[in-house]
Amino acid sequence: MRTQQERVERALEQVLPQPALAPGKLHEAMRYAVLGGGKRMRPLLAFAAGEVTHAQPERVVPAALAVELIHAYSLVHDDLPCMDDDDMRRGKPSCHAAFGEATALLVGDSLQSLAFQTLAEPASLTDSNRQLDLLRILAMAAGSRGMAGGQAIDLDSVGKELSVPELEFMHIHKTGALIRAAVLLGAGCGEPLNAENSGKLDRFAKFAGLAFQVVDDLLDVQGDSATLGKTAGKDAMQHKPTYVSALGEVRARELAHDLRSEALAALVSLGPEAARLRELTDFIVMRSN
Amino acid sequence: MRTQQERVERALEQVLPQPALAPGKLHEAMRYAVLGGGKRMRPLLAFAAGEVTHAQPERVVPAALAVELIHAYSLVHDDLPCMDDDDMRRGKPSCHAAFGEATALLVGDSLQSLAFQTLAEPASLTDSNRQLDLLRILAMAAGSRGMAGGQAIDLDSVGKELSVPELEFMHIHKTGALIRAAVLLGAGCGEPLNAENSGKLDRFAKFAGLAFQVVDDLLDVQGDSATLGKTAGKDAMQHKPTYVSALGEVRARELAHDLRSEALAALVSLGPEAARLRELTDFIVMRSN
Repeated sequence: MRTQQERVERALEQVLPQPALAPGKLHEAMRYAVLGGGKRMRPLLAFAAGEVTHAQPERVVPAALAVELIHAYSLVHDDLPCMDDDDMRRGKPSCHAAFGEATALLVGDSLQSLAFQTLAEPASLTDSNRQLDLLRILAMAAGSRGMAGGQAIDLDSVGKELSVPELEFMHIHKTGALIRAAVLLGAGCGEPLNAENSGKLDRFAKFAGLAFQVVDDLLDVQGDSATLGKTAGKDAMQHKPTYVSALGEVRARELAHDLRSEALAALVSLGPEAARLRELTDFIVMRSN
Repeated sequence: MRTQQERVERALEQVLPQPALAPGKLHEAMRYAVLGGGKRMRPLLAFAAGEVTHAQPERVVPAALAVELIHAYSLVHDDLPCMDDDDMRRGKPSCHAAFGEATALLVGDSLQSLAFQTLAEPASLTDSNRQLDLLRILAMAAGSRGMAGGQAIDLDSVGKELSVPELEFMHIHKTGALIRAAVLLGAGCGEPLNAENSGKLDRFAKFAGLAFQVVDDLLDVQGDSATLGKTAGKDAMQHKPTYVSALGEVRARELAHDLRSEALAALVSLGPEAARLRELTDFIVMRSN
């Protein structure tokens, strides 16, 4: 896992414009927002899903980077004062706290463009039609019917009590869409999957994404800011409905384990090629930040 | 021109998600920001450039929409309080004035995703490798080395006096990059151009883009808010360096005409196929909003 995280870090280093290029401050801020932090969960999922379809890891790199760049942009925009207004991210001042709001806005905008630029690189896959498929999957996952839409639902839910199905609807968009895209893009870099196995991967991604979010909600309550690298206790402070507010800590923890089991069950027939996806499922549920 | 504007309007209508789809408010705000306004200058340029390469107009539609969606997103983000802080756009309250800042942020983000999704639609071109080329051109034009980078340079220049070459550097990024992309994408939907003619189109796009900006600067001084559909006199109020502040109105108007001549000169040998690009050049320089 460490090896792949380092591979991602080096590749992000290369794909992000150098601060020596104009506009230097924007490029510096983009690098600040992306490099030197983060678990790289989505790239790891992309590589792991690529193993299921025997994708060469270097073929998965553009997809892994693109998903991570979309994720990084979303964090920068989510932290802005008009959204979650958070000054801390990955253990350091958030992008707007360090570079100002206007620059942070442009950092997010530019990272989104860079994600699509990276995934459109020539010959990142031998089959350009499939490359276009991946671009479309990523764009849909990022947009108003995916991640950005999830943020909008999140905004509208502040101060409300949501039922578990309503929470699920929100998170399937907000975090689930991009996690699903990471899995589909990674798998899409290898041999074509039949419809049955493709459905299984999709099912895995859904449960893994939800498990990720339930654990996020738990960590917000149980973790401390130093370990999390971001402000702990924020959900309650901002009156956001979470799995913990809906279910309590004990049942939320049980739900995380149930979702882990469902995710693993979806992988059963995929054989040893899915070993790393299984590892990551455990990592998602056991993580402390 | 009217026909093509209507074609663009109808196609935008279709590509934007309906407000009946969740999240409804976000979709409503996206439609508000994009539909029913705007000159559709960039789509018109894309169609006109497509005529040079004998592209079928319906083949140009996805490229024309994608460029317009990027433009629309940039207007929504530029109007935000942390940027230009403008409450009026296209003759009505700007997106954040109508829907709130957080929603406007997500509108811009979602429109950017939708632009790439639209351009990645299957079989929008018969040659998927060229479609990938167009996606990359658009991503680069939108990102930190293009439009968003131009915004960053613009931010840094507030309160400064810029020389004409410095202004040119800023605008080649801020407005020029996307206008160039409109021309290259439109032309890219037809028969391949040889390097010489491709260079000429590129040269045309550069001068047309600069002419567009010089006229924008003039209109900000000479126009009224009702005709412009946005707040007049804003550049001076915000201490932004412009061609008018650098050159005065008379010489700025002369520069616009010189740039028009340069743009037209670049088209000379392209024959009758470039007729509509010539018309648009005049429209760019003669427009009143």
